[in-house]
Amino acid sequence: MALKPISTQALQRMPMYLNYLKDLPISRVPNISATMVADELRLNDVQVRKDLAMVGQGGRPKIGYVVKDLISDIEHCLGYNNSDSAVLIGAGNLGRSLLSYDGFDECGIDIIVAFDTDERIVGTTINGKQVLPVSKLYSICSRMKIKMGIIVVGAGEAQGVCDLLVKSGVLAIWNFAPIRLNVPSHVLVQNDNMVSSLAVLSNYLVKEFSTNR
Amino acid sequence: MALKPISTQALQRMPMYLNYLKDLPISRVPNISATMVADELRLNDVQVRKDLAMVGQGGRPKIGYVVKDLISDIEHCLGYNNSDSAVLIGAGNLGRSLLSYDGFDECGIDIIVAFDTDERIVGTTINGKQVLPVSKLYSICSRMKIKMGIIVVGAGEAQGVCDLLVKSGVLAIWNFAPIRLNVPSHVLVQNDNMVSSLAVLSNYLVKEFSTNR
Repeated sequence: MALKPISTQALQRMPMYLNYLKDLPISRVPNISATMVADELRLNDVQVRKDLAMVGQGGRPKIGYVVKDLISDIEHCLGYNNSDSAVLIGAGNLGRSLLSYDGFDECGIDIIVAFDTDERIVGTTINGKQVLPVSKLYSICSRMKIKMGIIVVGAGEAQGVCDLLVKSGVLAIWNFAPIRLNVPSHVLVQNDNMVSSLAVLSNYLVKEFSTNR
Repeated sequence: MALKPISTQALQRMPMYLNYLKDLPISRVPNISATMVADELRLNDVQVRKDLAMVGQGGRPKIGYVVKDLISDIEHCLGYNNSDSAVLIGAGNLGRSLLSYDGFDECGIDIIVAFDTDERIVGTTINGKQVLPVSKLYSICSRMKIKMGIIVVGAGEAQGVCDLLVKSGVLAIWNFAPIRLNVPSHVLVQNDNMVSSLAVLSNYLVKEFSTNR
């Protein structure tokens, strides 16, 4: 089945739908309408209808979507059924947490190895994953045809690591470093900065306290 | 010093500035201009100028900002200098990773205790933090005047946990559950769904492979 192009915003909502659908007791709820999904997740009805139409084979009037098929269509769209190997660079504090997290395999991502420059970390194993020296990144990624890299190094090293990944043939980069990366147009970067969310919350508490005191 | 209201987008960029400024060798770079910061982080010059003007005491012509003062102004704005106690609910896979991550204290957040319903987890300690039964959440949060809650439970339980936090007096919620939470207007929610970023990257790889094969 060919994939239709889907907006980034719609893609970002897909895991939410998937999560909800997988939690349904399929024996009792074999079919579901977009309206029901929207109500349960407190999303806009029209938006959910559009999102599901992009990915699913189409809901039928009065019946809706077959839950089992819709789950499989979303998983197909997100590539969850064929696992992608990924590498992680930067086995510091956050890097270790990501390596220790076992939830990524459900998303079709398998972090197979980590890289670091710190000699005290290189040679160790985190959650069954070896930490290798960054000097081996190019040879391993190009030989194993790795398509995804997860950057968890500091802002100063991130662009260098990124360039190395791109040279090795990586197409998708998940960037946790607090910097905008320069990449060629065939490479997709998703920036994830947990600390940005915290910044918004902390500032809110500062303001709340200064007005309440 | 009273805080000016700052947009969410600007706040989200603040940790990036802070990170960059803290990495500077202050003895050699005592002052910095907004243009330099923008160049280094590859951000828009005008945007950085506006952001820094919101938070800093103002840069001086030809000299720019005093790095030391700018760092302290940003930290003040983000409340990094007075630590907020937070609780985490849901000590599953991701929850454990967050509890194990020691980088939050730099952001002025101190996760003091975790809650879970799973009897096998309750009573254990993760990275020095006790896991207590959810039944104790209300009494502990209200007694200790906890202002921040981190929700890492499944979509089905998230709203219930959120209601309990709000009832206990929590004002800021960091939500990792894949659902929109209903909160009163005095409570701020930041949604963080790492899996959404992964969904975008995975879909990109699916498309790349289907066109290249």
